[in-house]
This record gives sequence, structure tokens and C-alpha cells, in this order.
Amino acid sequence: MIEDIDHIGIAVEDLDSAVEVYSKQFGMPVEHRELVAEQGVEAVLLGVGESHVELLAPLGPDTPVGKYLEKRGPGLHHVAYRVEDIESELERLKEEGVKLIDKVPRTGICDTKVAFIHPRSAGGVLTEIVQLPGSH
Amino acid sequence: MIEDIDHIGIAVEDLDSAVEVYSKQFGMPVEHRELVAEQGVEAVLLGVGESHVELLAPLGPDTPVGKYLEKRGPGLHHVAYRVEDIESELERLKEEGVKLIDKVPRTGICDTKVAFIHPRSAGGVLTEIVQLPGSH
Repeated sequence: MIEDIDHIGIAVEDLDSAVEVYSKQFGMPVEHRELVAEQGVEAVLLGVGESHVELLAPLGPDTPVGKYLEKRGPGLHHVAYRVEDIESELERLKEEGVKLIDKVPRTGICDTKVAFIHPRSAGGVLTEIVQLPGSH
Repeated sequence: MIEDIDHIGIAVEDLDSAVEVYSKQFGMPVEHRELVAEQGVEAVLLGVGESHVELLAPLGPDTPVGKYLEKRGPGLHHVAYRVEDIESELERLKEEGVKLIDKVPRTGICDTKVAFIHPRSAGGVLTEIVQLPGSH
């Protein structure tokens, strides 16, 4: 079951200047910075209520976020929803006929378990589900 | 001060089939449906934790969301953050040099007060701030 918005992912070209905008101008505290080599990004999480803004800069032009920037420019990249039990949620979504990018969870930022749902099954939106470490 | 993510706005072509996807497949309850003539959209709010998904269908091709769909197709359109006092937040943002689309608040869905910030001042993201009715 989807519990809350975990984060919105924003693709940016210059990570440091985006962090400056979101932390200074919008007053969101920087909570974490991580190089996620597997996904080809450097990511910064900023806190906003119970959710986060995740700023994503590509490690190169041939990464998914690099290609996204090339095609669409900086902006909203994906939305992630928090779930209690990602395996049972994936099972449920599969039974609903949802098109999954990840049929089994992989490790995301901050040791979360994550899986992506195809935009075609989510109104055109690249959608992620996230289980926090220690949940379930 | 920004307190939380109020909603993410998703531009869709077919409102009813998008509502079906988000309510049945993702289990988000429909909380409100409104025709916002001033913004040229019909909108449906679905609950997710303390936030919402706002599905937006254009009332015609010459509306902002209609033009967005024509150019980029369905997907993430904007993000809205909840603030306690929108007038003082707009004042603060103006002093920070933020490029505002709305210098004074206007009425949004569910009798909220809303104002949009230019994507140029928010890492490429069309950004809205929202004050709930009864706040402040």
C-alpha cells in the first residue's frame, strides 16, 4: 500500500547551484549526498515535511538522467511513493497488470529498497516505490 | 516557510482513465473534483499521506496545460509546497530575487490561496506555493 510521497526527483545540470536554490531560497535542509554509480547519478536529498526533494545530476551524458536532460532539459524527473513492504506491493501491482521496470527491488539511495514503474502505467509519470531501511 | 509537499500536478489527456489508474491501481482515494475555469483545467485531487496527487486535464488546446500536453505529452507538470502564510512567503521570495509568475496570490482549487514561481528560479520546475483555507 502506498503511504506517502517519499520524494520528488528533479534532474539538474549543476548540482551545487541547484542545492543552493533549494536550501537557501526554499529553506530545505540538505540531509544526504550520495554518488549512486549504478544509476549514473550524484544525488542530494533535502527535507520538506515528511518528504524530500531529490536533486539528481548525471555522471555522464550516456546515463538515464543525462539522456533525460539532453532531451527535455532540467525539471521534474520522477515521483517516489513510500511503501511498507515493497515485495508485496510489487506483487500486488503485477496482479493489477502494471508495467514494471524493476520486477524485483534494487538498492537505492540511503540503503532503501526501490523499484520503478513504467510511465505508461502511471499517467506518463516515471514512478518509483521506496521501502525505507528497517521497515517491514 | 515551506512546510511540506502539498501536491504534485500531473497533466493527463483523459481525466477519467487517469483517475482510474491512481485510485484503483495505486489505491489513492479521490478527495475532490473541480473545474477551475480560470486555469483552464478540470482537476481531481487524490490523497496520499499528508499530500495529494492532482490530475489535470485541459479544457482546451489553447490552455496552459493543453499547450504543455501538445509539447511534452502527459506527465509531471508542477509541484506545490504548503506554506502557512503565502503573503509573507511571497515577500521573502521576492527579497531573495526569485522570479515569480504570481506576485500576489490567486484562488486555487478547494479555496486555497496559490502563487506560481517561475521554473527558471526553481531548477527548471514549475513550482507553486499553497496556503490552505483557514490557515494564518
